[in-house]
Amino acid sequence: MYDVAIIGSGPAGISAAINLKILNKSVIWYSGRADSKKVELSHLIRNYPAFPEISGKKLNEKLRKHALNLGLEVKEEVVTGVYETDGYFTLLVQNESVTAKSVILCSGVETGKPLDGEDEFLGRGVSYCATCDGFLYKDKKIAILITDKKYEHEAGFLCGLAKTAYFIPQYKGYKAPENAEVILKKITRLSGGMKLEKVEFGDETAEVDGIFILRGFVTPSTLVHGLRTENGHISVDRNCATNIVGIFAAGDCTGRPYQIAKAIGEGNVAAHSAVEYLGNRE
Amino acid sequence: MYDVAIIGSGPAGISAAINLKILNKSVIWYSGRADSKKVELSHLIRNYPAFPEISGKKLNEKLRKHALNLGLEVKEEVVTGVYETDGYFTLLVQNESVTAKSVILCSGVETGKPLDGEDEFLGRGVSYCATCDGFLYKDKKIAILITDKKYEHEAGFLCGLAKTAYFIPQYKGYKAPENAEVILKKITRLSGGMKLEKVEFGDETAEVDGIFILRGFVTPSTLVHGLRTENGHISVDRNCATNIVGIFAAGDCTGRPYQIAKAIGEGNVAAHSAVEYLGNRE
Repeated sequence: MYDVAIIGSGPAGISAAINLKILNKSVIWYSGRADSKKVELSHLIRNYPAFPEISGKKLNEKLRKHALNLGLEVKEEVVTGVYETDGYFTLLVQNESVTAKSVILCSGVETGKPLDGEDEFLGRGVSYCATCDGFLYKDKKIAILITDKKYEHEAGFLCGLAKTAYFIPQYKGYKAPENAEVILKKITRLSGGMKLEKVEFGDETAEVDGIFILRGFVTPSTLVHGLRTENGHISVDRNCATNIVGIFAAGDCTGRPYQIAKAIGEGNVAAHSAVEYLGNRE
Repeated sequence: MYDVAIIGSGPAGISAAINLKILNKSVIWYSGRADSKKVELSHLIRNYPAFPEISGKKLNEKLRKHALNLGLEVKEEVVTGVYETDGYFTLLVQNESVTAKSVILCSGVETGKPLDGEDEFLGRGVSYCATCDGFLYKDKKIAILITDKKYEHEAGFLCGLAKTAYFIPQYKGYKAPENAEVILKKITRLSGGMKLEKVEFGDETAEVDGIFILRGFVTPSTLVHGLRTENGHISVDRNCATNIVGIFAAGDCTGRPYQIAKAIGEGNVAAHSAVEYLGNRE
């Protein structure tokens, strides 16, 4: 049982992790990638105080090194669900689960919105984890929405199980599994009755039994049932507390301005709030 | 007329100033000192992300250099009042005044609470500016509460004017003006009727016509009439907006945690909120 689970490795996640470590809390830390792609792609940052000018690449290096110096390392695994039971939180991570007393969401905002219908059919045809749920679709029809080359092995595993697999890549240079049927269109909606039945692409439709969404993150409202969001941002108060006691959020996922300094500040605040929360429950 | 006036030169003020400058806003920036004393006195900072370990002194240098690189310089003068007129703000600074369309308060929290009675007798015996109000007390009885050696020249000026001057130092190594009467006690209350009449030190009392409080800052609620505070902190929303439209606040003055990262984050947010406010009023 960890004190705090952090989801996300951008500036907010790093700031939260650093503070929790210094405050002697046990931390488990997950993210689809080891650092922030958004920071990495920033050519020149001029408003992170104390660095008059720094490239995103260089800042990412320094942030990662700061965390590593404290013995903190991100596990590059995607958390696919967070469930509360008896005041604790269980995180589903690929085909494992871990428990923590509190959670800090720092999942960024590049995540965009979930697909139309994604939340609705979660657990009824929508899955985020090939190894967890793949066997449910043996000899069935599935769609695979995939956003990065690194999930191709999962897609390959699914294509080996399913009777028909639609491979829907959202990146360049993809290599589809041999028996997959590639669809190069944008999904507009997931639809069905009690269970998912169709993946819609505008006027066209593919009939499926399920869809696997392999994109390195799960949108917060899908990840945590009952989490309050507004316009795609997690609603938090001045202490970075969400509407769910014990769950905090920091960084771009809580809203504008999308700024490194703001994320770092909120990561700090969320960590201190989590520590206070842990103190009060003892 | 400036776009934004910033009060305070700690991490929040610096972060706000940097962002406003980069966003091409005109800035006037005041503080009792050129950087944060609190940061300066930090032996070792381990949780300002991207600096695994840095002394407060070194961080202050880097922060100041960042601002200087952008052509930003703090005016080491104390703002003694902020008044709204026709949607603009007038700042009284020693014996000048400047106007700005918006204000960001980053005045820190080491300020502590005002004296009991300080707000009540403001303008009726309580003054913060020797050169502005000194002449009102010619041949009268005054008290001088003084917190730093650098205000001794102001105290000397006042002692030259007044008939009786009680010199109440709150620092070590003071040098009282020749004709001053030194009191080494803690002020417990300012009292009187329509005007200030007494400075109380527990059971003892000094009768005065006025008191000069020379401490390098003015507490926010005294500085800005009608500013909402709670437990000594300025109340702000998630955008760092105070209850007064056009006035924002950031850093320790808005509440805990008292952390550099939080202050930097809020300075960033306040700057962006001020820019949005400026855009909307045009």
